[in-house]
Amino acid sequence: MSLLVLGTVALDDVKTPAGIRRNIMGGSAVHFCMSARLFTKVALVGVVGEDFPKKFIRFLQRKGIDISFLQTLPGKTFHWNGEYKKDDLNTALTLATKLGVLAAYVPRIASPHDRTPNVFLANLDPDMQMGLLKAMRSPQLVGLDSMNLWIAHKKRSLVTLMKQVHLFVANDGEARSLSGETNLIKAAKKLRSMGPKLIVIKKGEHGVLFYSDRFSFSFPAYPLEVVADPTGAGDTFAGGLMGYLSKVNKINERTLKKAVLYATTIASFNVQGFGIMKTARLTMPVVHRRMKELTTFFRF
Amino acid sequence: MSLLVLGTVALDDVKTPAGIRRNIMGGSAVHFCMSARLFTKVALVGVVGEDFPKKFIRFLQRKGIDISFLQTLPGKTFHWNGEYKKDDLNTALTLATKLGVLAAYVPRIASPHDRTPNVFLANLDPDMQMGLLKAMRSPQLVGLDSMNLWIAHKKRSLVTLMKQVHLFVANDGEARSLSGETNLIKAAKKLRSMGPKLIVIKKGEHGVLFYSDRFSFSFPAYPLEVVADPTGAGDTFAGGLMGYLSKVNKINERTLKKAVLYATTIASFNVQGFGIMKTARLTMPVVHRRMKELTTFFRF
Repeated sequence: MSLLVLGTVALDDVKTPAGIRRNIMGGSAVHFCMSARLFTKVALVGVVGEDFPKKFIRFLQRKGIDISFLQTLPGKTFHWNGEYKKDDLNTALTLATKLGVLAAYVPRIASPHDRTPNVFLANLDPDMQMGLLKAMRSPQLVGLDSMNLWIAHKKRSLVTLMKQVHLFVANDGEARSLSGETNLIKAAKKLRSMGPKLIVIKKGEHGVLFYSDRFSFSFPAYPLEVVADPTGAGDTFAGGLMGYLSKVNKINERTLKKAVLYATTIASFNVQGFGIMKTARLTMPVVHRRMKELTTFFRF
Repeated sequence: MSLLVLGTVALDDVKTPAGIRRNIMGGSAVHFCMSARLFTKVALVGVVGEDFPKKFIRFLQRKGIDISFLQTLPGKTFHWNGEYKKDDLNTALTLATKLGVLAAYVPRIASPHDRTPNVFLANLDPDMQMGLLKAMRSPQLVGLDSMNLWIAHKKRSLVTLMKQVHLFVANDGEARSLSGETNLIKAAKKLRSMGPKLIVIKKGEHGVLFYSDRFSFSFPAYPLEVVADPTGAGDTFAGGLMGYLSKVNKINERTLKKAVLYATTIASFNVQGFGIMKTARLTMPVVHRRMKELTTFFRF
């Protein structure tokens, strides 16, 4: 096992200009896994309730996800109900969140999974993220994602956690609110000063900004005419990023650029379908074809 | 003469989080020229009032701008008073506009300038833009810029004009309002269907999207930590784009990519100083250094 992700496994109700879906499989860890699985073996650490369809569990297994630490607890699965409006597909409007079994969740891990070298703490309560991180035995690369809810209500826990991670991914709004800076380069520098050496700021349809002490870069997103459902785009991005870095097991300017390009490319598939519809079917030749299209922008 | 621009020559009052400047030289044609002059000889077609400082005229001449058709008319120079707020440096808030001599301006041109092969119609009343275009003798490349004011109040004139130009540049807001499409690729396609073969959508700090029937591409902007004054960034961009294309006198995927990269790079200097402070001093070695930094993003 080279990569482990802690995050939510959810049942989502999503409404977008492209349609409505109910009770589809979602959650940060699921989206992450659909992307990371293209590069490496991934273990998913999370929790579902007794209502979680068995076929979804079997589906994850079929996709090669290690679900040894996907617990099933009495109660309901975490449920998210969100909407995206035509005018701003970058912003999810949360209509309802039912925590269910997630409310009292304590992440568990054991040998040999606690020795997984690459760990991603996908969007979740920072105290739960810290709980898992403490249980891991000297991981070599730890990535962290968060969201405005935790920035607003659990900032102290999040700030403590940031000191212990190597890579921090945030969308532009999160980066601005956590850093207090409007300018994204300033925001990235501020986030860097809070601990993580590698800062990735996702700007949705506008692409991505990478910042580190030694080098920084920006890439555009893959231009898409139709966006069906942006849910999980950030998690899919993170899965590609961590998946590729785990596979090559080397961090330098070149591998980080390639990781960000893979992440960008795979995230562009995610938004073309509801939930994991597109990413679950994705294969590397298809990813490479689109990534070549994207990198052709830069050939002249 | 290989390039001619019609646009405003203005006295600007600008307020940004970086400071306040009064009566500085501005206007779409001036910003365009400061950028285009780096590539080719440019003629500026426009009008000023009797209050326009002689030293500004001499300055334009010193910068190599051909001002044979910069008229001085009785009355006041076009005056723009604008502000940018900290939270959205992409959006200019117009506090006051005094048209002055621009109100009754009729662009004039004569031989040999009417045979200039490359023409840019910078932001101005579309009827004035059309007036100049009709006076030109079979230009080979005509570029057009506009703004929300004309999209709202002179849409018919603008739409008629668009049928006669090759290249259309717009910022994202203008592209959306003129096309009626939220998605920028759809917006670009719609604009293409209105006439111009080459569509360039500027997204401010988020970079640029190029669209044509045969190929499209996106580039990120050069990341900047401090933005002093965004005024004229779009005109500076257009100047770099048209300047480079006029110089190489060839339009294909490679030259368009290079033109957009030059435009992006030079526009990044523009926003680092008030008015034309930075672009007026710019030299090609400095441009190339930053452009290399930008293209290094894409080397891996």
